[in-house]
Amino acid sequence: MKITTILSGGMDSATLLYYAFSKTINRNDLKVLSFNYGQKHKKELDCSIKLTKNLKVEHKIVDISNIRDLISASALTSDKEIPEGHYAKENMKLTVVPNRNAIMLSIAYGYAITNKSDVLYYGAHAGDHFIYPDCRIEFVKALDTAFYIGNLGFSTIDLIAPFSKKSKVDIVKLGLKLNIPYEDTWSCYKGEDRPCLKCGTCIERTEAFYINNCNDPLLTIKEWQQAIKNYREFKKEYEQNK
Amino acid sequence: MKITTILSGGMDSATLLYYAFSKTINRNDLKVLSFNYGQKHKKELDCSIKLTKNLKVEHKIVDISNIRDLISASALTSDKEIPEGHYAKENMKLTVVPNRNAIMLSIAYGYAITNKSDVLYYGAHAGDHFIYPDCRIEFVKALDTAFYIGNLGFSTIDLIAPFSKKSKVDIVKLGLKLNIPYEDTWSCYKGEDRPCLKCGTCIERTEAFYINNCNDPLLTIKEWQQAIKNYREFKKEYEQNK
Repeated sequence: MKITTILSGGMDSATLLYYAFSKTINRNDLKVLSFNYGQKHKKELDCSIKLTKNLKVEHKIVDISNIRDLISASALTSDKEIPEGHYAKENMKLTVVPNRNAIMLSIAYGYAITNKSDVLYYGAHAGDHFIYPDCRIEFVKALDTAFYIGNLGFSTIDLIAPFSKKSKVDIVKLGLKLNIPYEDTWSCYKGEDRPCLKCGTCIERTEAFYINNCNDPLLTIKEWQQAIKNYREFKKEYEQNK
Repeated sequence: MKITTILSGGMDSATLLYYAFSKTINRNDLKVLSFNYGQKHKKELDCSIKLTKNLKVEHKIVDISNIRDLISASALTSDKEIPEGHYAKENMKLTVVPNRNAIMLSIAYGYAITNKSDVLYYGAHAGDHFIYPDCRIEFVKALDTAFYIGNLGFSTIDLIAPFSKKSKVDIVKLGLKLNIPYEDTWSCYKGEDRPCLKCGTCIERTEAFYINNCNDPLLTIKEWQQAIKNYREFKKEYEQNK
């Protein structure tokens, strides 16, 4: 099976990369695509390079940062402040880049047709759904249908989200089995040198390792202790506000 | 009603632009998007600039030419030869850029969300369907559904193809009523200084004006005579091969 997979350099897509690698017989059957969409920082992209070098698989980075000016109503690509805290639904809406995943998936699908893949993997997972509608399985299925109709006679590629029913905790559980070097992944939304340990993705990442009884290999012991402390505080606050 | 419309600079999208303009009360309610996707020539884009300047409406050109290397299995963006002749189904398949319209529509949809449009207009028409699956109304509807689901809570924009049931002849008929300066549009797929008058789009363009009892204002009288001659020859050949 020939697979094209999208890699951001975060935990989920890194796990998806290794999962896809485990499904292919030959490393030439795996094609990896990353996007520079004008993120505030390049840490994730650096991680995507490290991860694909580890596996010695073909990796391309597409620069779509010039659509940043066009589509900018988001904290991820504009100067708005990144919201802090897990579960902060209203705040986290600021991190939505309008139609971003549809844009990336449509380019990746075109690439998958060009490189003659059988499937296109997409790292949406169950944990994403409550704030990001374009991570829902309904969206993946609707887009798969549209792409199928739009390329009738030219392609029969399936767009699949293998982790659509997995939580981030499940994903890390799988990743630990696959020996993924999570120290080569980056999650923090802020563009600082080290993870802030406070933003939504940092808290989620901490939770995923914590529940798997494992420390985050990206962090120093001191950072890990701080991460757990922040996670517990946010969780407590969340339970109180429920 | 606020409208975002996609303009290639060809006849169909130029007609759509003027149609959209006729539907808006204020010229600020119309936003126009063109794409540089690594076309062999820039004539169409030059036309898109002229047309929007005529109407004094906001126009942006997005450069997505860097996906050219990624998605290149097409005569429109690679070095393969452009096929000649109308109705040449198998040959014309060479002009298909994998998933191109989905890519452009997903970016335009993100832009439409950002600029707070109510609808996104797309110039697919009935004449396109037989070779380009991503011009079919089924595709437009499926993509509209996917985008709706993918942006639930953030957008209720409708993706609409107002000309989906119109032929190119119908479109020119409408355009002549709207006084469209068709001399400021470009259709020929070849990157030459003047239209080749032989390729599929040239033949189709000739047909559309010819059946509307009108000459193509882009052409000199001599060119128009040659265009009609070519059109009649292709039509004869087509009828014989039916």
